[in-house]
Amino acid sequence: MSLSIKDHEIDIVIGALRSDLTSFMSEWRPIFSRFHLIIVKDPDLKEELKIPEGFNLDVYKKPDIDCVVGTSTSTIFSGYSCRYFGYLVSRKKYIISVDDDCYPAKDNKGILVDAVAQHITNLTTPATPFFFNTLYDPFTEGADFVRGYPFSLRSGVQCALSCGLWLNLADYDAPTQALKPEERNSRYVDAVLTVPARSLMPISGINIAFNREVIGPALLPSLRLGGEGKFRWETMEDIWSGMCVKVACDHLGLGVKTGMPYVWRNDRGDAIASLRKEWEGVKLMEEVVPFFQSVRLPREATTTEDCVAEVANVVKEQLGSKDPIFARAAKAMVDWVMLWKSVGSSTSSPGA
Amino acid sequence: MSLSIKDHEIDIVIGALRSDLTSFMSEWRPIFSRFHLIIVKDPDLKEELKIPEGFNLDVYKKPDIDCVVGTSTSTIFSGYSCRYFGYLVSRKKYIISVDDDCYPAKDNKGILVDAVAQHITNLTTPATPFFFNTLYDPFTEGADFVRGYPFSLRSGVQCALSCGLWLNLADYDAPTQALKPEERNSRYVDAVLTVPARSLMPISGINIAFNREVIGPALLPSLRLGGEGKFRWETMEDIWSGMCVKVACDHLGLGVKTGMPYVWRNDRGDAIASLRKEWEGVKLMEEVVPFFQSVRLPREATTTEDCVAEVANVVKEQLGSKDPIFARAAKAMVDWVMLWKSVGSSTSSPGA
Repeated sequence: MSLSIKDHEIDIVIGALRSDLTSFMSEWRPIFSRFHLIIVKDPDLKEELKIPEGFNLDVYKKPDIDCVVGTSTSTIFSGYSCRYFGYLVSRKKYIISVDDDCYPAKDNKGILVDAVAQHITNLTTPATPFFFNTLYDPFTEGADFVRGYPFSLRSGVQCALSCGLWLNLADYDAPTQALKPEERNSRYVDAVLTVPARSLMPISGINIAFNREVIGPALLPSLRLGGEGKFRWETMEDIWSGMCVKVACDHLGLGVKTGMPYVWRNDRGDAIASLRKEWEGVKLMEEVVPFFQSVRLPREATTTEDCVAEVANVVKEQLGSKDPIFARAAKAMVDWVMLWKSVGSSTSSPGA
Repeated sequence: MSLSIKDHEIDIVIGALRSDLTSFMSEWRPIFSRFHLIIVKDPDLKEELKIPEGFNLDVYKKPDIDCVVGTSTSTIFSGYSCRYFGYLVSRKKYIISVDDDCYPAKDNKGILVDAVAQHITNLTTPATPFFFNTLYDPFTEGADFVRGYPFSLRSGVQCALSCGLWLNLADYDAPTQALKPEERNSRYVDAVLTVPARSLMPISGINIAFNREVIGPALLPSLRLGGEGKFRWETMEDIWSGMCVKVACDHLGLGVKTGMPYVWRNDRGDAIASLRKEWEGVKLMEEVVPFFQSVRLPREATTTEDCVAEVANVVKEQLGSKDPIFARAAKAMVDWVMLWKSVGSSTSSPGA
């Protein structure tokens, strides 16, 4: 791990959608035990949490959430969105967040992947969004910039978000998984790369890390599907939030990386039974992607909060009339910025 | 290899900068022997070529080049640029081109990589330049589009160019190699990805394949360094040509992929001795990259020839006065399009 980062600058945020975290925590113990953990219990979950001993952690349950944001606001943290409460109350510089059905993965050589170390390396080495390096991350050991890469772009920019990947059950949508029920991802790609500026991507919330001080307010629960359930393929909040983050990063000159670290996703749920719910999200993407591809933020937007507020305005204007879900998302974004400013800690301009 | 591609639709083009091709051809025999080869001898090379028996090939030497394009034009094919003569006289749909100091690589499992098969797979499966898929090429076996990827973009677009990578001696510039004389690339990244639309990259000519019918005229010798030599790190023609190709592909809605296949590059040359020459190219990139990032082609440009001619116009206009090398490059591009139309076979609009 980067020498300049102290363990106490990192919060690991876990949204607990299942009550028994014993095997999850036990598997992650060698990697997580040095760090402070924030566990946020899905407010809809009735059973008591089972968490093994020996971790440095804070657990937040429905009464805690109600207490901080009020009972009317706390509904935004149900299901997978409970983790955003952890992002809100954290005071650390870096956040790492992993779904509770993911376990540590092994690399091509059978060695346990330290996902925290890899995420922190991704966040603390520069990103290169303005020109593509064919040998992937030039800051990886043994790699560099290839012939033809302009020297003036080699210092790169600050990396704000690191998106990890998944072995075994990949992050497919329900139709894809239903069509290929046996498909599992076994391809371990030994690479990290910067997603180029102005290129959008579907950012998954399953395994991510970010610089909370710089981009925190853009990771937010705002697009919620009517039939949203407790399986990843029934959710879209992370995809929508990821579009906001990428647009904000592009505007602010920050980088987004994708690739390693991998986590091992356990099988869970019935893709075919989820099909009915998922199509809503699938249909929305046909509007969402062209919209975000066209968004340009004004020069006056110099902080992440500004960017989120500006995106919310344009969502309301351009998408608000197409589907009530977008109008609700726009309002949720504005509310989130206010919440972040009052409960959380606001960000400064990057580089300021 | 894709079932729809016949061996006789492929030309393998080799620019011979060294006279003894015995070990090169022998190493590639298991992969190349099924295909037709075009070997173009560097016109500056005095010694007779040594080529082992048992290949289906045509060899072009200086007199052949003079005969086809005239003695005044034949100078454009000296050094690494000799391969472009092969591109010009080929009548095949697909071209694969590998530097003569590259040998077949082995993958992570120690299995010989069939670079031809991988390039053809890259070219015959769709590219996805308009949205980034975090699990890399969704058309690879065992992969798919991830959750959130719009269904309307999943059919992708035609792939025009496949850029392979290098193990052992990577394609660094002379300063980088001189600074890290021991650095060798040992990282085999098991992935292919589409470079997003509007993202530029330094395309290396060491190991590439392309659809000649669609994008052929954009692979052209035009930017020639004053001190250009017989080592890759002393050249820029492929980087410049690559910028033209990418801009043309973006304009025409075609895709460019990068990643596998790898080739094994043997050590050759003295990076430190080359430093004096290389800086010219390094300095030029500071002008070249922002220029190509700003180029937008008019709607009327519907063929690759149109695109090249348009880029040549803007090069002349915007860069011509900055350095005579750019004015010469612009003229060479215009000349190339004329040459391609008279000697080669002109392309049609993609999809037409």
